[in-house]
Amino acid sequence: MAATPWYFVAVLLTILTSSQGILTTLSQSDGGYKYDYATVPFLAEVFKLIISGLFLWREIRTSSSTTSRITTDWKSVRLFVIPSLIYLIHNNVQFATLTYVDTSTYQIMGNLKIVTTGILFRLFLKRKLSKLQWMAIGLLAVGTTTSQVKGCGEASCDSLFTAPIQGYLLGILSAGLSALAGIYTEFLMKRNNDTLYWQNLQLYTFGSLFNVARLIADDFRHGFEKGPWWQRIFDGYSITTWMVVLNLGSTGLLVSWLMKYADNIVKVYSTSMAMLLTMVASIYLFSFKPTLQLFLGIIICIMSLHMYFSPPQTLVDLPVTNEAHPKTLKQVVVEEKTDS
Amino acid sequence: MAATPWYFVAVLLTILTSSQGILTTLSQSDGGYKYDYATVPFLAEVFKLIISGLFLWREIRTSSSTTSRITTDWKSVRLFVIPSLIYLIHNNVQFATLTYVDTSTYQIMGNLKIVTTGILFRLFLKRKLSKLQWMAIGLLAVGTTTSQVKGCGEASCDSLFTAPIQGYLLGILSAGLSALAGIYTEFLMKRNNDTLYWQNLQLYTFGSLFNVARLIADDFRHGFEKGPWWQRIFDGYSITTWMVVLNLGSTGLLVSWLMKYADNIVKVYSTSMAMLLTMVASIYLFSFKPTLQLFLGIIICIMSLHMYFSPPQTLVDLPVTNEAHPKTLKQVVVEEKTDS
Repeated sequence: MAATPWYFVAVLLTILTSSQGILTTLSQSDGGYKYDYATVPFLAEVFKLIISGLFLWREIRTSSSTTSRITTDWKSVRLFVIPSLIYLIHNNVQFATLTYVDTSTYQIMGNLKIVTTGILFRLFLKRKLSKLQWMAIGLLAVGTTTSQVKGCGEASCDSLFTAPIQGYLLGILSAGLSALAGIYTEFLMKRNNDTLYWQNLQLYTFGSLFNVARLIADDFRHGFEKGPWWQRIFDGYSITTWMVVLNLGSTGLLVSWLMKYADNIVKVYSTSMAMLLTMVASIYLFSFKPTLQLFLGIIICIMSLHMYFSPPQTLVDLPVTNEAHPKTLKQVVVEEKTDS
Repeated sequence: MAATPWYFVAVLLTILTSSQGILTTLSQSDGGYKYDYATVPFLAEVFKLIISGLFLWREIRTSSSTTSRITTDWKSVRLFVIPSLIYLIHNNVQFATLTYVDTSTYQIMGNLKIVTTGILFRLFLKRKLSKLQWMAIGLLAVGTTTSQVKGCGEASCDSLFTAPIQGYLLGILSAGLSALAGIYTEFLMKRNNDTLYWQNLQLYTFGSLFNVARLIADDFRHGFEKGPWWQRIFDGYSITTWMVVLNLGSTGLLVSWLMKYADNIVKVYSTSMAMLLTMVASIYLFSFKPTLQLFLGIIICIMSLHMYFSPPQTLVDLPVTNEAHPKTLKQVVVEEKTDS
C-alpha cells in the first residue's frame, strides 16, 4: 500500500471528502438530523479501528519481520493520545469562537487553517518551502475564501468586520489548533518505522475513547433525558447515515496514509479542492446558484496547485518555440535592409 | 528621460491613474457632469500634443544628431493613425456591448483585457513568457475581477450570467480591440529608433483630429441644440475639471513612455493596481464600505506582481536557512578529512 502514488490517494480523499458534505446534507430530513450527529464520528472511529486491526493482523500473519515495526513501549504509545487531546481543546475553542462570531464569519476564518498549517509545517517539521510554494499556500487560502464570499442578495451582510476582537483571536487560535493536530499526527506517523496499521490502531483507540467520553458528557449535559447513548446509538439511522459513517471513516484512513507517506500540505490541498467540488456538485444536486466568486475561487486554487506541485523549472523557464527559426530569418532580412 | 527606471514611471502612472477616477468623481456635481465630458479627452490630447511639441523642439535645439531620429516618410507617419482607428472601433463595439449587458457585467468583462493583452503580446510582438508569468497574468485578471464581485445587499444580482450571448461575444471583442490598440502602439514606438517626442507628436495629432471629429459628430447627432462644440467647450469647467484634463494628459504621456521603454504588461499592472488603489482611497474619501472581496483582490494582485516581476530563481530556490552554517562548517571538516 505504501507503493501507491500519493496523488492517487489525494484524489481519492478529495472525492470522498467532497461526498461527505453531500451525504451529510442528504442524510438530513426536513432540514435537521433525525439521528444524534455525535454518534457519527464515534462509529467512524470504531470503523477505522476495526479496519486497521484487520490489516495489522494480516500483516503480522504474512510477514515475519514486522515485529521490529511495532513499538509497544508506553512512552511511545502515550504520544498517540495527543491528537485527540488537541481536537478536544479545538472543539471547545470552536464553541467559544461561535459565541462571538456568526457561522459564516467562522467559515471564512476557517481558511486561515491553510496558512497556519504551512507555518507549523515549517516550524515544527522543519520543512523548507520556496517563496513560490509559500505564495501558493497563501493563494489556496485566498482562493477558498473567495469562493465563500457572500453573493448579493444573501443575508447577514456586514457581519464579517463587526465581531468583537475576541472572536477573531479565538478564530486564529482555532486555526492554529486545527493545524497543530495535523502537524503533530504527521510527526507521529513519521518519527519511526512502525507499520502504519499499528500507528493507526493506537490513534483510533484513543480517538474512540475520546468520542465515547463525549457521548457520555452529552448524556450528562442533557440529564439522560433520552436515556444513555448506547441505548439510542442507531436511532434514526438510515442507509445514508451509514454511508456518512463509512465515508468519514474512509477519509480518516486516507488522511492517516497521507500523513505517513505524503504530508499535511497534500492533505490541505485535497480538502480544499473537495470543498470547491462540493460547491460545484451542489449546483447540480441542490440547484445552488453558481456564483462568479466560486468560478474565481476555482481558478485561483487550480493555479495554486500548479504553483506548489509543478517542477519549478517547468514554471520559470522561458519556452523554446518552434518559431525561433523563421524569426531569425526575418531579423536577418530587416538587418540587411537597414544596412543597404 | 529614457534613463528613468521603468518602475518609477509605472508607480507614477499607478498614482495618476488612480487619481483620475477620484478627480472625475469630484468633478461631478449632484451626481452628474456640468461640463461636456467628451471635451476632456480632446483637451487632454491637445495638452499631450503641446507638451510633446515643446520637448521635441528642445531636443532638436540642443542636439545636432537628432535629425536621423525623425522619420517623416508618409509610409511611416500614416501608421500612427491606426491606434486612433482602433479606439474608434472599440468605442463603437463598447456602445454595442452595453445594449446587451449592464454596466457592472461590462466592468467585470473589462478584466479580460489583461488576458487578451498577454495573448497579443505573445502573438504579435513575439515576446516569450514563462508559465509562471502566464499564470501571473491570469491571476491579475482574477484578482481585479475578485475585487469587483458584487457584495451582498447590492442591486442587480444575477445579471452576470443572464445576458444574451451577443453581449459576451462583443465583450470579448471589446477586450481584444482594447488590447490590440496597446500592442500596436508598443509596436509603433519600438519599431524604429525615432525620438519618443516625434512619435508622440504623430500619435497625438491623429488623436486630436479624431477627438475633434467626435465632438463634431456629437453636435450633428444632437442637431446643434446647444451650438457648435467650440463655442461651449469650457462650459461648466471648474478647477477640478482642469485637473481631470491635466491628469488624463499626463497619464497618456506616461503610457507612451512605457510603450517605448517598457511594455504593455507593465502598463496593465500599473492600471490594475491603480484600480485597486482607487477603491481603497474611495473607502476613505467617499466612505465606501470595505469588502472582503477587495481585500482578497489586493492580495491576489500583489502576489501576481511578485510572480511576474521577481527574478525567477528567488522564487523557486529553497531558502538557505541559518541552520546551514554549522552544516557548511561540518561539510568543510568532512571534506578536509577526505582530502588528507
